[in-house]
Amino acid sequence: MKAEIIAVVTEELNKLGIEVVRKTIVGDNRDLLAEAFRDALDRVALIVASGGLGPTEDDLTRETVAELLGRKLQRNDAILRYIEGRFRQLGREMPAVNVRQAMVPEGAEVLENPRGSAPGLWLEDSGRCVALLPGPPRELKPMYYEQVLPRLERRRSGIRMFHRELRVAGMGESRVEQRIRPIYTRYGDVNTTILAAPGEIQIHLRMWTDDAAQAQKTLDEIAQGFEIALTDRIFSQDGSSMEEVVARLLTMNKATISAAESCTGGLLAQRLTSIGGSSSYFLGGVVCYSNELKTVWADVPPELIQAKGAVSGEVAIALAEGIRRHVGSTLGVGITGIAGPSGGSDEKPVGTVHIALSHAGGVKERGVRFPGDREAIRWHASQLALDMVRIHFLYNGGEPPARGAKRS
Amino acid sequence: MKAEIIAVVTEELNKLGIEVVRKTIVGDNRDLLAEAFRDALDRVALIVASGGLGPTEDDLTRETVAELLGRKLQRNDAILRYIEGRFRQLGREMPAVNVRQAMVPEGAEVLENPRGSAPGLWLEDSGRCVALLPGPPRELKPMYYEQVLPRLERRRSGIRMFHRELRVAGMGESRVEQRIRPIYTRYGDVNTTILAAPGEIQIHLRMWTDDAAQAQKTLDEIAQGFEIALTDRIFSQDGSSMEEVVARLLTMNKATISAAESCTGGLLAQRLTSIGGSSSYFLGGVVCYSNELKTVWADVPPELIQAKGAVSGEVAIALAEGIRRHVGSTLGVGITGIAGPSGGSDEKPVGTVHIALSHAGGVKERGVRFPGDREAIRWHASQLALDMVRIHFLYNGGEPPARGAKRS
Repeated sequence: MKAEIIAVVTEELNKLGIEVVRKTIVGDNRDLLAEAFRDALDRVALIVASGGLGPTEDDLTRETVAELLGRKLQRNDAILRYIEGRFRQLGREMPAVNVRQAMVPEGAEVLENPRGSAPGLWLEDSGRCVALLPGPPRELKPMYYEQVLPRLERRRSGIRMFHRELRVAGMGESRVEQRIRPIYTRYGDVNTTILAAPGEIQIHLRMWTDDAAQAQKTLDEIAQGFEIALTDRIFSQDGSSMEEVVARLLTMNKATISAAESCTGGLLAQRLTSIGGSSSYFLGGVVCYSNELKTVWADVPPELIQAKGAVSGEVAIALAEGIRRHVGSTLGVGITGIAGPSGGSDEKPVGTVHIALSHAGGVKERGVRFPGDREAIRWHASQLALDMVRIHFLYNGGEPPARGAKRS
Repeated sequence: MKAEIIAVVTEELNKLGIEVVRKTIVGDNRDLLAEAFRDALDRVALIVASGGLGPTEDDLTRETVAELLGRKLQRNDAILRYIEGRFRQLGREMPAVNVRQAMVPEGAEVLENPRGSAPGLWLEDSGRCVALLPGPPRELKPMYYEQVLPRLERRRSGIRMFHRELRVAGMGESRVEQRIRPIYTRYGDVNTTILAAPGEIQIHLRMWTDDAAQAQKTLDEIAQGFEIALTDRIFSQDGSSMEEVVARLLTMNKATISAAESCTGGLLAQRLTSIGGSSSYFLGGVVCYSNELKTVWADVPPELIQAKGAVSGEVAIALAEGIRRHVGSTLGVGITGIAGPSGGSDEKPVGTVHIALSHAGGVKERGVRFPGDREAIRWHASQLALDMVRIHFLYNGGEPPARGAKRS
């Protein structure tokens, strides 16, 4: 099961009050697969497996599970006809290997898969349930929601998991922990997990109870405590990503945005447009790697680049103001920096990035030095650019209030 | 352990001839963690764990492993001074919680971590080895290479794993399987795995032997067989990504490239610039979401957009030719399409994408309908655009030779 899928399935099972005690990844090897299923069958009441249902030689899940449960594999002609029909629609004949996908263990229920050729399987055995789902997320997810979830809901107890996810930008893990520890340790019935992700810290609150009102109240209380402790560093209270939060702010404020990127190479534009409907706030952007294109597309004066260097606060500001003027957007972002691995100097080492945000009332600029490799530096730069847009709306274009605690 | 890390560590252990029999993910819960470690200690000679060494309450790995092995935790003052020094460098005082990171099980070797505050730990117990590594990949990876690998190499046998990874674009999993099956089934001592990844199929060949020359010869033979069976659809013989392959072709051919993207929103530029040194071949690109910007930045005639629609082969061609002319690059790519979820129609449903590649000798255009959601459609579009660049260089700008087998 892939990591993305593991996360989705775990989350959904938790919502039903089903605790996921272990997630196992094994290769396409009959012995290892059998060992993993055997361990799980000995220990838990529900096994959700994904992958290994394809047509190829190394797809062994069907055979392994059938053997472990002592069930014969039988050819299901309805599935065979469906798979043949699918290939026909694409104007092709079904390859002989795909017949394997029509083999079903005795007594298994077939979970239809309108998005792919491999059907899923649902087995019950001595009170234990086994769901075998296809590997590709776009086939697995709908099958889980449409066919596995209803089967599980019929079995569920009154106890459910209530979950809240907060996300924090511009602060390290220990600092977050230090500030929120006095709060969450007061709640013994809530499980708090702090995870460091690229460019952000994720705080998960989980509570198992059959009292929904009490759970909401408790989680609200903790979240409010965190908000006081972490101030404007919390960018999301519902698990939304930074780009989703910024998309919402731009839409709510009927604002548009454009970007002139150098070291991030289009990553900011790509993140801004990863949200459906982004054409309402994102008009366009340029990736101006060469100095000439910085001048052509964002009016950066060649003399400025000469005097200050392409990686400088001044050029970031010129990029932001230039692209905003060119595109006619409410906001303009300029990013210039050294993502590495080469190109650094003593004065401007790899990781040096300048980001500017131009708006009707003026311009803000931040110079930073990010740690990590090329990918990390580019990601951090795009994250900070998005965070500057968020902070801009939070204080209506003004400055954040001064405060005692240092922001880091 | 995160999926990315699992893949890296597995690969590296395999190279040493160490087979990874199971990968387990458990939450930050003392019982589940203990159970997972106990199962592993009963079964294998080496355990590599990552994460749970942080300063926070839910970082339980140190304590759990110490308890299982019956070792006391002792405060290591050298580590403590190091962590304090690290915070001092950042101009801060060490939060009290970080003291936990200086606790070491009796008899453990400390693996220094110059990139973070959590040191790793190496334990040996009744012939079994346990490596506890930090979670963040940028801390774990160097620690693995610099400190774990040398310890393992001292123990390794003569048998090693030899590995070859081929990547295929523009062909489905069953079709690939169908064509290469007659070849790989002739080699009983080679393990062949076929994996479907977004926009590509990955074929892994693995062989365990102490005879390096024989392994190379066998893997070469199989790879050559695959090349005849799959023709130009194999884009990588060494596991390189599509962007790495295209970067190499552009550099070798001293060619430059520019892009005018609509539906991919900067993803193509971002992938082209994800490679270090990309400024030698990538000069710049534009993301022109609005029709006006298509005209301003890539000279697309407004009448053309009016007559054919923004999503059309004609507009893709105009974008490619316009951006190539504007930037003065050897190649120009234009992409326009409907990534969804909204914006589709009967005539042009979600997933419709037109991609054009303009070069000195003319222009090529392809109209496609990709399956999947917004993310998948954007990824597939960027993958096909890169593949068109690859094919362009493969046939020196000419057309691929006609062949009997249909490409799909």
